Order: sequence, then C-alpha cells, then structure tokens
Amino acid sequence: MLKSIAVMTSGGDSPGMNAAARAVVRTALYEGVKVWGIRDGYHGLLEEDMFEMESKDVGDIIQRGGTFLGTARCKRWKTPEGRMLGYQHLVDRGIQGLCVIGGDGSLRGASLLSKETGIPIVGLPGTIDNDVWGSDYTIGCDTAANTIIDAINKLRDTASAHRRVIVMEVMGRNSGWLALVSGISGGAEYILVPEEPFDLEKICEDMKEAYKKGKRYILVVVAEGAGSGQEIGQYIAEHTKLDTRVSVLGHIQRGGSPSVIDRVRASQLGEQAALALISGLSDIVFGFSKGRVVSIDLHDSVNNKKKLDPDYLHLSKVLF
Amino acid sequence: MLKSIAVMTSGGDSPGMNAAARAVVRTALYEGVKVWGIRDGYHGLLEEDMFEMESKDVGDIIQRGGTFLGTARCKRWKTPEGRMLGYQHLVDRGIQGLCVIGGDGSLRGASLLSKETGIPIVGLPGTIDNDVWGSDYTIGCDTAANTIIDAINKLRDTASAHRRVIVMEVMGRNSGWLALVSGISGGAEYILVPEEPFDLEKICEDMKEAYKKGKRYILVVVAEGAGSGQEIGQYIAEHTKLDTRVSVLGHIQRGGSPSVIDRVRASQLGEQAALALISGLSDIVFGFSKGRVVSIDLHDSVNNKKKLDPDYLHLSKVLF
Amino acid sequence: MLKSIAVMTSGGDSPGMNAAARAVVRTALYEGVKVWGIRDGYHGLLEEDMFEMESKDVGDIIQRGGTFLGTARCKRWKTPEGRMLGYQHLVDRGIQGLCVIGGDGSLRGASLLSKETGIPIVGLPGTIDNDVWGSDYTIGCDTAANTIIDAINKLRDTASAHRRVIVMEVMGRNSGWLALVSGISGGAEYILVPEEPFDLEKICEDMKEAYKKGKRYILVVVAEGAGSGQEIGQYIAEHTKLDTRVSVLGHIQRGGSPSVIDRVRASQLGEQAALALISGLSDIVFGFSKGRVVSIDLHDSVNNKKKLDPDYLHLSKVLF
Amino acid sequence: MLKSIAVMTSGGDSPGMNAAARAVVRTALYEGVKVWGIRDGYHGLLEEDMFEMESKDVGDIIQRGGTFLGTARCKRWKTPEGRMLGYQHLVDRGIQGLCVIGGDGSLRGASLLSKETGIPIVGLPGTIDNDVWGSDYTIGCDTAANTIIDAINKLRDTASAHRRVIVMEVMGRNSGWLALVSGISGGAEYILVPEEPFDLEKICEDMKEAYKKGKRYILVVVAEGAGSGQEIGQYIAEHTKLDTRVSVLGHIQRGGSPSVIDRVRASQLGEQAALALISGLSDIVFGFSKGRVVSIDLHDSVNNKKKLDPDYLHLSKVLF
Repeated sequence: MLKSIAVMTSGGDSPGMNAAARAVVRTALYEGVKVWGIRDGYHGLLEEDMFEMESKDVGDIIQRGGTFLGTARCKRWKTPEGRMLGYQHLVDRGIQGLCVIGGDGSLRGASLLSKETGIPIVGLPGTIDNDVWGSDYTIGCDTAANTIIDAINKLRDTASAHRRVIVMEVMGRNSGWLALVSGISGGAEYILVPEEPFDLEKICEDMKEAYKKGKRYILVVVAEGAGSGQEIGQYIAEHTKLDTRVSVLGHIQRGGSPSVIDRVRASQLGEQAALALISGLSDIVFGFSKGRVVSIDLHDSVNNKKKLDPDYLHLSKVLF
Repeated sequence: MLKSIAVMTSGGDSPGMNAAARAVVRTALYEGVKVWGIRDGYHGLLEEDMFEMESKDVGDIIQRGGTFLGTARCKRWKTPEGRMLGYQHLVDRGIQGLCVIGGDGSLRGASLLSKETGIPIVGLPGTIDNDVWGSDYTIGCDTAANTIIDAINKLRDTASAHRRVIVMEVMGRNSGWLALVSGISGGAEYILVPEEPFDLEKICEDMKEAYKKGKRYILVVVAEGAGSGQEIGQYIAEHTKLDTRVSVLGHIQRGGSPSVIDRVRASQLGEQAALALISGLSDIVFGFSKGRVVSIDLHDSVNNKKKLDPDYLHLSKVLF
Repeated sequence: MLKSIAVMTSGGDSPGMNAAARAVVRTALYEGVKVWGIRDGYHGLLEEDMFEMESKDVGDIIQRGGTFLGTARCKRWKTPEGRMLGYQHLVDRGIQGLCVIGGDGSLRGASLLSKETGIPIVGLPGTIDNDVWGSDYTIGCDTAANTIIDAINKLRDTASAHRRVIVMEVMGRNSGWLALVSGISGGAEYILVPEEPFDLEKICEDMKEAYKKGKRYILVVVAEGAGSGQEIGQYIAEHTKLDTRVSVLGHIQRGGSPSVIDRVRASQLGEQAALALISGLSDIVFGFSKGRVVSIDLHDSVNNKKKLDPDYLHLSKVLF
Repeated sequence: MLKSIAVMTSGGDSPGMNAAARAVVRTALYEGVKVWGIRDGYHGLLEEDMFEMESKDVGDIIQRGGTFLGTARCKRWKTPEGRMLGYQHLVDRGIQGLCVIGGDGSLRGASLLSKETGIPIVGLPGTIDNDVWGSDYTIGCDTAANTIIDAINKLRDTASAHRRVIVMEVMGRNSGWLALVSGISGGAEYILVPEEPFDLEKICEDMKEAYKKGKRYILVVVAEGAGSGQEIGQYIAEHTKLDTRVSVLGHIQRGGSPSVIDRVRASQLGEQAALALISGLSDIVFGFSKGRVVSIDLHDSVNNKKKLDPDYLHLSKVLF
C-alpha cells in the first residue's frame, strides 16, 4: 500500500474537476495516506509547484467551475528528460503514485511516465466531449450539455420572433456526443456530427418546405468536428434564402458550476482512483459503464475511438 | 398492433413529463398510429376532455416545466364505476391502449383499469423522488436535484457570511434519494434520510466541535421523510446554541425547465412506451437500469420498495 | 380620446417586449379602449395579419423572451405606397392610433407614417443596446447585461484554470453601454467602446507586466462597434504571446427571460404609451430619465446620438 | 484629508456587499489612502480581527454573493464601553474613518460611535428590503427580486399543471417593496404588502369567480410584514376550497451572485463613500435618487420611514 500520492489536473479544464480532486484528497486522508496537490499540471510538477494537502484545502470547491489546481501546457513534458525530472520531484517528496485528471493527451503523458519510471499512475477522464473509449461518461459533459441548452433556449426566443434559421456550433472535434444530446434536448431539427454523413443540399430543400408550411424557426446544432458553423450557416443562407444566424458558443461550454451528475460522478471516480492508486494499481482509467464505475486499461482507452450511442442517433431521427 | 392510443399525465407533476408525452406522440405518429392527449389525468378522461394530436401539438414544449396536458386529483377514479366510464370513453373513440405518466398512485389506478377491462396499459415513472422500484431513474429527479443545489449555493453565500448552521428540507416522503444526491453535490456536512438511522445528539456534539475549530458554516440536508426541517433546526439551535436557519424549498423543486438528462431519458422512455403499447404489451413500466431502458412488471414496481444506492451512502460518509 | 388602438413589435427583438405589449393591451382594456395586435411588425400590417386582443391573450407572457407578436423585415414599408396601404388596413378596422415597440429604424418608419397620414403614433424603445437619446434605459438592456455577466462567469472559471486572456465581444454597433456595464460588473480589466479611443499597443504592454506580477487571467470586453473581437484577440496574442481566447456571444444576448427591471420598466412604459396614445398624443417616445418615465420628441430621439454616462466611464477606470 | 480608513459589513448580508467593499478599497488605494478590512462587523472590531488591504485582496469577489468580510451579531457593541474599545482599536492602527455597509441597526450603531468619539462615519445601505429612507435603492434588492421571480417561474410550471393557488411569502418585515416588484414582474394576481390594507374575504370571492371562468392558476405574493404565508394560504384554502400551496423562500433571497444593477450601483456607492470619508465627511449614508448617487443625513435615514412608490402600487392594479 502506498503511503503518499499526488493529484493534478491537466489539459483543457472541465466542470467537475474540482469535485474529482476533492474526492481523491479526502479519500486518501480517510485512508491515512498523504496527498499532494500539483499546480498547473505537468508544468507545475517540473517547477516543483506542489504542496501537501489537508481536508480543508478542498473545502468550498465542489460547486466551482474550472480547476483550483490550475492547468497549463508543458512542452518539456514531451521529452524523456522532462519526465525524468518530474519523476525525481515526486521521489524527492516521497510521493509513490500519481492521479492525473484530464483528456487524452494528458493521459498519454502519464502513461509514458509510468512506463519509463514504473511509478503507479491512475487517470480520470476530464473533458466535456465525452469521447473516452470504454466509458459512457467523462467529467464535465453533463454541465456542458446543460450550458448549451440554456443558450439554445435564449436563441429560440429570438429565432421564433424573427422566423429564423439558427446554426449553433458546439464543441466536439472528434465526437458528436455534445451536439447529439444537446440537439435532442433542445429540440433541434438537424444535428450534424462527425460520425455520420449528412447532405446539406437535401437539408436545405427540407427547410424551405418546412417554412412554406408555416414553421417559425429551425435549429441546427453542429459539432465543430462536422464543419464550421459559419460555413454551414452561409451555405444554408445562400441555398434557402432564409434569414440565418450563426452562434459559436466557444469556451463558455467549459465553464460554469458543475451539475449534480458531474459533481456526484466526479466524486465517485475520484474515490475509486484514490483507492486503486493507494492499493498500488497502475495504468488504468476510471469511467462509467452501465451506470457503475469501471476501470479501463489506460492503453486501450487512448488507442480506441469511441462510437456514438446508436440509441441517441435513432432518437434524434424519430422525434423530429 | 394497436391503431390508436392515448397518453395522459397524472399525480404530481415533474420536469420532463412534457418530453415524455412528446416522445409518445411523435413515436406513435412515426409508426402511423393515432394518438390522443387526455387533459388533467383521470379527471379529464371522465370528463371526455381529450383530443387527437398532431406532431405540432407537442412542438416547443420539450423545454417547459410542468405538464402541458395538465393533471388533477380524481376521486371517482377510485371506484369501479368511474373506471368503467373512463374505459367507455376510450372505446367510444377507438382508443386501444393507454400510456400513463405519473407516480405510484397513478400507476396503481392504471393497473386496476387494465385488470378490469383488459385494455393495454403502459406506465412511465414521473416523479422527482426517484423512488420507483426496478429503475435507477424517474422523470424529473435530475432537474429537481439541480434546483436544490442552486438553492444550496445561495444559502451557502449567506451562511458563510454569518457563521450559521443551515438546515434544508427537501422533498422525499419515502425516499432519501434527492437529499442524498443533492447533499453529496452540495457538500453537505450531514444528510438525513428516512432509510438510515441518525443520532441528532451526536451530530450536535460534532457541530460544536467543528465550530470551535473554525468552521464557517454547516449544511444539513433533510429528506422530509426523515423529519421536519423546522423541528430538526430547532433541536440543533437549542443543543448547540449556534445560529441556525431552516429553509423548506417546497414545490419549487417540482418546477423549472428540465435538465438534459431529464429531457433525453424522458424522450427515450416515451419512445419505448409507445412502441411497447402499440405492439400490444401491457402492465409494464419503463425505467432505467445500468444505463439502459428496461421494462418492469407494473405489479412488482408498485409493490416493492426501492433501496438507496449503497455507493451513494458510502460516498456521503467518506467525503465529509 | 381614441376608441381603438393597435400595438406591434418591430426590428430586432429584446427581452421585455412582451411585458411592454402586455401593458399596452391591459391599459387600453382598463380604459375601455379596443386594442389590436399586429403580427410580425410592418410586414404583418401590410399582410393584414392582425387581431383584436383580450386580456387573456397577454396572459402568461411577461416571463417570456422574444416577442409573442413576432417581428420581421419589411422592404415595402420603405415606400410611401406601402405605408399608405398599411394606413388603409388600420382605417378599415377603425384603428385610430399605433404603438410601435422597436429600435431606431422602426421608430423612423413610424414617424413617416404619422407625417404622411396624420395617424397618432407613440413609440417605445425596444433594443438591448440602450442607445436611445433622451432615455437612460431601453427595454431589454438589463437582461442582456445580465446574460453577458453569466457568460463572463463561465469564461472566468476556465480562464483562471489556464492563465489566459479572454476577449469577449458583445453587442453594440454604435454604443458601448452594454460593454461598459457588463465590463464593470464582470470585473473586466479592459473595456473597449466606440465612444472612447484606446491604445492596443499600450494595453498589450500592461498585460505583459500584469502577468509577470502573477495575474491569473485578464478579461477584455469589446463592444462590436469598437472592433472585431477576433481581430483584437489576434493582435493581443501576437503582441503579448499570452494564451488568448475570443468569445463572440452573438444573438444569445437578445434572448432569455426578462429581468425584474426589464419587466417592471417595460410595463411602466407600456402603460404610459397606451394612456398617451388614447389621449391623442403623437410623435413621442417614452423612456426613463432620472428614474422616472419621460416623454421624448420622436424626432429628437432618432436624430440625436446618446453619449455614454461619464460616471460609468470614470468608474471603469478607478476600480481596475 | 484622512490617511487611513476602514471598511466593514454588518447585519444581514446582501448580494453586492462585496462589490461595495471592493470599490471602497480600490478607491482608497487609488487616492493613496490606506484601507483596512474588519472581519465579522463590530464583533471583529472588538476582537481586533482586521487587516490592511491591498488591491488583490478584493480581486475575484465582485461576482460572489454573501460578504467576504463576514458579519456577526455583537451585543457588546450596544454598550458605550464596547464602542469605546472599538474606537481604541481603530486609533491604535491610525485608522481615522469608518465605512459601514449594512442595514438600519448597523447604521445606528455607527452613528453612536461617531457621536461618542467624533470619528468620521459613512454608511452604505446593504439590505435586500429596499427600505432605506431617502434612497430608491439598497444594495442587493435587485438580485433578491430576480431570485424571487426565478422561483415564481418554477412554481408557475407546477401550479399551472395542477390548477392551484400559490401563496409565496417573500422577505420584507416593514416594507412591501420586494413583494411589489416581484409580484408585478411575476404576473401575480394579488400582492399583499404591509403598507396597504387588503380584504382577504373579498380576494377569496374574486378567486372563486376567476376559477369558474377557467383560470388555471392564481399567484399571491405576500411580504412577511403583511402576514404569514402559511396562515394566509390556510385562510384561502378554507374559504375557496381551491387546492392551495404555500412557499416560503426564506434566506435563499439573500444569496446568489449579484445582478448587474447591484454590482454597478454598489460600486458607485462604494466609490462615493470612500471619497466622502477620505475628505473628512461624516454621518452620511449614500443612496440613489432619480438615477444618481445622493447623500442622505444618517440621522434622517434611520429615523424616517420610506413609503412604497405609488407608481408601482398603481401599476399592480392596472395590469392584472
């Protein structure tokens, strides 16, 4: 059993990272294990920006967006020398294992450290895109989806007043999950995702038909991986002659106080990560599958591509 | 295969009922089946307050709280004569099956109708309490939990300013689910639920200790089934001499625009309910288990008592 | 005293237009005067898309964004023939006066109608930009400013996690009001408005200095009239080498349930507009000055340019 | 000109207190004057819980509810000995003037200190009740009113589903301001305030009539000074036999991230308070009148009772 572990957040932030880090810290302390917080991800590890944590250091943070530990890019981590230096900084403090909360890139970086030095590593999927293989869920995806439907509600007000087409671009470079669930929830007429082909010309024909029949507005949700909202909007405007507006939500999707689901699940994941790490496990990522926490091989997780839930794809076709 | 079905909402309303009814209607129409909407639950059925629905009748409602179909109490439904009259009103219109969205009482009433007349009945669990046996989820529970943590956030602001104990009573006469998840999410120090015994005297001792150590506020979340917030607050005030305030959220918990989870899951349940009913199935309730839609025997559902998720109970102890 | 009036919304919509229209309708009915609603602005007037209204037609709308009456562009209104036709449609129904809720362009169009036909016209300033001369306030500006600070809160979470510069472009082609109040409220380090010159090069120097001293993030709010958020962001990124992100909120700013201020003030303005119109007044716009409803000459209102409140400009310099 | 001042928050907290304190601090520093923060109001002053502040001590707080300085009750302050001790603690640190942000009681306490010791005192009205004589506005009242209409929106959903009467009790022991503006904004059918008599029996008769005509729900907003929501609800239930529910919002009204108005006005007030105090003024309270900051004699402010705005009272009658 390990006696001392550390936790960091890395890569793009997502709502619920604080809840996850809090659960890691409190579980470790509950188990009588020392726990260190590393600031600004791998950058902070190389700069030795780290501190031993007490329970109160994670008080009053479960409701906050962002990450109180900070995160940063770190080029030096990409070199073996950088990673060896980071390892040394852990060893200097007697830290025997590391929990990394972040997306794909961050987990890959952690995997290399484990291979090269043998130090136990456990990962948690912190990204709003919900694109981690082996897990139905990633920390922050529920809050981000709710942020999007709030924006859709506001756009719908004004779209309906003006008889407009609204094109909303949401995050998801490789994954249409956010577009799909927020589109279903927001009552979008069209949902464009990278995983599924679509025919813009035909969509424009359908739209013209719908307006003739009296439709007051049409909502199109586009995952950034399926195309630029701006370009798609322009195409629609030209081909339908309908009044078309584009909204690109951008980084707002990463912020905000986390939802209940993101707080609870991040807490469950944080607890399991701490317990696994303390028991000496390594090279695993914790996620959710079938409603329960599951452990996924770190290698499998980063080397496989997750597919969109076919039930959601089906639903998006039946209900509109 | 049935040619014509009807849908109603009954009992206490919950956010997402509109999404469920919308999915029932659109699925039926997609399958080429007629679908009727019954207003104000069994009351409307007896009053013949019903209309055949088109797709646009459920447009622009997925984002609304409450139920556009309405709901009401109905004493006459409790008599066999009442139910036979309701059945006659369905038969008069050629309606061959009924989907009831509501809580325990409503599903029981539906079960009697099925037994006495043989008409197919499918139920959907519409209640914020998440207390339906066989399902991890009921329509509205996620929105309600998020409403509670918003309120907790506001109370925390003022509690922290004043060094107070805050007691928040939330809904859940037989079930501590809402209290448990909102307590975990809100970072509550104590969560009192009907399913677990608690020792108020000891809690008061702990509180006094925590204040001495500098704690700025303490949050207690109480399920209404575990005791009156008012009485528990008074007990704490007397035994700790700490400045204690009580908040009873009340019916606000039932309202509000539904969350993403409640919109998506209610839509999935509505689709499955319509498909099952159209295929002639009866006496089942659809819910979620292990992340997927499942069908539950209506009888089992209303006659068994759901237990609290032990993972959540455990979590509430480790993290605080 | 007029016996029958009409109300329309025109131009870009803004939150609170519904409250204003509701107050016009209910005040007219309270005074025993007939009141018509015209759909989709001048376009609906030309298409004769109008209906006599009852009190319940404006029930349950005070909390809604957008405008239930709709609004649309109308080229034909720009011709004297178009306006004469619209006038005829009013006369046909015995309508003796018109209340127009909208921005500058809409009020100008109304002014022409009044000049050419003599029909009494009263205007209400419906725009989020708060740029109507003679008034401290326009319908929707408070809701829009609150929408912006909610977005700023979310961006701040993620900016702080990453040590970033955030550039947020908000609406206001001719006016920096929204940028100024949301910037002050959101704690922006820099607020760029069309009314005041700024020196981007110097700003970049200051930013670099601030980061050296440990600042975790910098927020720049830009009114669209002061420059493109995208271009300003690029300039900052190049000149400071800091991680810079741009957010363009877009039409979300026009939507959302109106705030208390927008509901109450729109109601007060609607009441005064109806009373003035009924008494036969014409060519005035109602606004707020020194906390009270005031009437402004329609001509003055559209021909003068409003200045930014110097108190706000001063405040933005002292507090940051 | 003073060289060193202090600021505290006292009494019940309200949203925007942080913005006010921030403006006091930054204005003082901008003017080259030292500024101290006192924690937990008069209690902290007696306990010498105070610290000299820098600009960054008030960074990242403008968006927070509550008060980062804390507030507490203090019995000892009611004695001349207590106040003399507090004065001594100020003198010990070279503090020459005090800015108190709080309600009536807090300002009275400050007034005594000024009289007894001659130290300059400037007050800011921090209370959600908007009941300070001489000012149209108090810090926090806009946020509280918006919190109430959010709750009304949620209750409306469920009330409409059930055909219910909803009685909502809001804060305001001596003042009906909050009830009045939130009632007007929320479209309440009845608004009961301490300043105006009402006839519950007649109200019940009207309600029965309205339900017969098909009204789906009725909303009654009650200021706590006009009666207990619980008792009024019970009376209505008994006399109308309508399904009646009561909601008591409680302390949630004091919390939440401040609105734009509360942030901007609190900032303006804080700036003026600091400037006045530094220039040696004393015994004044800053408020808003006719849209501008005004100074009010402290004595007048606490000894006169503010009346409800007759325009609002009138509006509440015309629009419903």
